[in-house]
Amino acid sequence: QGTVIRCKAAVAWEPNKPLVIEEIEVAPPQSNEVRIKIVTTALCRTDLYFLSESTTKYTFPMVLGHEAAGIVESVGPGVTEFKPGDKVIPVFLPQCRECRFCKSPKTNLCERSAGKRFSRLTCRGKKLLQFANTSTFSEYTVVNQIAVAKIDPEAPLDKVCLIGCGVCSGYGAALNNARVEPGSSCAVFGLGAVGLAAVMGCKAAGAKTIIAVDTNPDKFHKARVLGATDFVNPNDHDKPISQVLSDMTNGGVDYSIECVGNVEVMRSALESCVKGWGVSVIVGYTDMHDFAARPIQLLSGRTWKGSNSCVFCCSGFKSKDGVPEMVKAYMAKKLNLEEFITHKMTLNQVNDAIELMEQGIGIRTVLSVSPQQ
Amino acid sequence: QGTVIRCKAAVAWEPNKPLVIEEIEVAPPQSNEVRIKIVTTALCRTDLYFLSESTTKYTFPMVLGHEAAGIVESVGPGVTEFKPGDKVIPVFLPQCRECRFCKSPKTNLCERSAGKRFSRLTCRGKKLLQFANTSTFSEYTVVNQIAVAKIDPEAPLDKVCLIGCGVCSGYGAALNNARVEPGSSCAVFGLGAVGLAAVMGCKAAGAKTIIAVDTNPDKFHKARVLGATDFVNPNDHDKPISQVLSDMTNGGVDYSIECVGNVEVMRSALESCVKGWGVSVIVGYTDMHDFAARPIQLLSGRTWKGSNSCVFCCSGFKSKDGVPEMVKAYMAKKLNLEEFITHKMTLNQVNDAIELMEQGIGIRTVLSVSPQQ
Repeated sequence: QGTVIRCKAAVAWEPNKPLVIEEIEVAPPQSNEVRIKIVTTALCRTDLYFLSESTTKYTFPMVLGHEAAGIVESVGPGVTEFKPGDKVIPVFLPQCRECRFCKSPKTNLCERSAGKRFSRLTCRGKKLLQFANTSTFSEYTVVNQIAVAKIDPEAPLDKVCLIGCGVCSGYGAALNNARVEPGSSCAVFGLGAVGLAAVMGCKAAGAKTIIAVDTNPDKFHKARVLGATDFVNPNDHDKPISQVLSDMTNGGVDYSIECVGNVEVMRSALESCVKGWGVSVIVGYTDMHDFAARPIQLLSGRTWKGSNSCVFCCSGFKSKDGVPEMVKAYMAKKLNLEEFITHKMTLNQVNDAIELMEQGIGIRTVLSVSPQQ
Repeated sequence: QGTVIRCKAAVAWEPNKPLVIEEIEVAPPQSNEVRIKIVTTALCRTDLYFLSESTTKYTFPMVLGHEAAGIVESVGPGVTEFKPGDKVIPVFLPQCRECRFCKSPKTNLCERSAGKRFSRLTCRGKKLLQFANTSTFSEYTVVNQIAVAKIDPEAPLDKVCLIGCGVCSGYGAALNNARVEPGSSCAVFGLGAVGLAAVMGCKAAGAKTIIAVDTNPDKFHKARVLGATDFVNPNDHDKPISQVLSDMTNGGVDYSIECVGNVEVMRSALESCVKGWGVSVIVGYTDMHDFAARPIQLLSGRTWKGSNSCVFCCSGFKSKDGVPEMVKAYMAKKLNLEEFITHKMTLNQVNDAIELMEQGIGIRTVLSVSPQQ
């Protein structure tokens, strides 16, 4: 406490290259900051996105990882909400509880930043940018307290780490953004962790029909377990997918949720909605292209929304309030996390986990980072 | 009654050409149809759009005009809701009261069509397509009863004709689609009749700030009379208009309403909304281009909606229910229609009215068609 910690981290030195396991230095937490021992972290597609595709906003070297759970090691001046030993989930999206966004029930955004170009990490004299202000591919990291959620001390960190991003994003998109109604019809595009969580959210909201759409039919089994009732592989059809879904649902689904991050899929998801009241929610992220459609799509009564998640996590959940609630739901067996975890590895194997994700194998790889004691 | 009526109409024989005043034949109303003596009609930009720009869906020759008021001349078999002498407003958007859309409170669409390629009009042996199923640039027309609204017999037809399209579209977009809240900030893009009605709707909803945006500053006076508090001419600024509005409103308006029908303006209107909860409503129509934006615009909490009006009229008002209510509001002096009427002409002068609109002069020209008695 109060001293620099030397520990292991996976460093992204440059784009499109394997991460390198290095010994890094983690500075003591400054004012309002919390230093966290990361116990487990999962790999999310967004990590890969910023490693390989979008290098405009993030600069290297950096430490990726943002879907994790850990234990508070020490706290900086002014921190009263946390103490060493607390179990926590770091979140990209802060919740300061004071700004006009935090005070509005309409959004989960927060006007305060958890730190622009934030870094308490260094390696061989170089600052390592903290990706998503978190950097959980490290045995220790430092996060502003407005971006840390305290969770049930009984929670198994190797499961609830998924609540830090993917599961909340999909589940919340169905519950908080689309506001799926009982008896309705839904389509979920893309059956990665976020899409599967969206299926689970549609089911929890009481949807009658949940159509799972993916070009990889290997994903359909998990989708069925989590609540999907119908399955569509666009490669099996000559017609536009919106036409296929329209034919299945008498004119289109009530809700569609895009969990791919592809602007053409976003368009299909909107066009798959029924006119009059169909709501399409974008959860997938890309900053490389515009999404687009003909005006008549909206003029005939459809609504296009985003997951209100500011790129990462939460989809309408206020982060510090929502994450502990989702952990509670898991502890009460209302949330299935086990189904998402297809691989377990250690931080040393992070490049193998990346390889699996790039090949579309499995859903989530959970990486053991530090021992819990 | 029961016989063909020979009367005067303005015929659009081909695209991009002046209309021609002709003697035409109007067949007797068939089953469930109402023959209406059109007393007054206004010219709406949508008439011009389909005359000059978009010839894909409509075929010539046709009779334009869809924003009108008249008196029932005769009714076909099965019509019990109307009798000769009733004052009515024909509407493009039907309300059958029986389909799943009519039964849903979420939309004003109707699954039934008031008639595809509908026509009871002929001229020199040629069928004249009824534009928007109405064709009000004619002394008489025939409309299916599901697309006719009965109104207060005391209503002045030369005023309430505006309720048939433009005024409902703008007013309803603010009230029914954006659902503007008291104390909020709004921006209205485009100050034609629809935009001015949107300003009036924002005011009626209790908005605190109503920013009127138009490249023609001649429109600002009317906007002020109808409730606008601030005025922006994009030509006066080097910055993107979304940045100008953001600076004026601490991060963007709560609601924006696009009343131009230009996809670049649609994009600006969305980007002018505050993140977190901003709602942008498209009212303007074009079928020539995609509207588009970066995904982050929605992912950061904005919502993109349409006026739920199926191109013409009503913006969330169920047509047969909503139009008479709006007429009532006018009769109770809660709605200002006079301010919209800048020119009065006769049907013979329809090409002069088109010229005025193309030059951006005035707001609405009301054309006297048939004498009221």
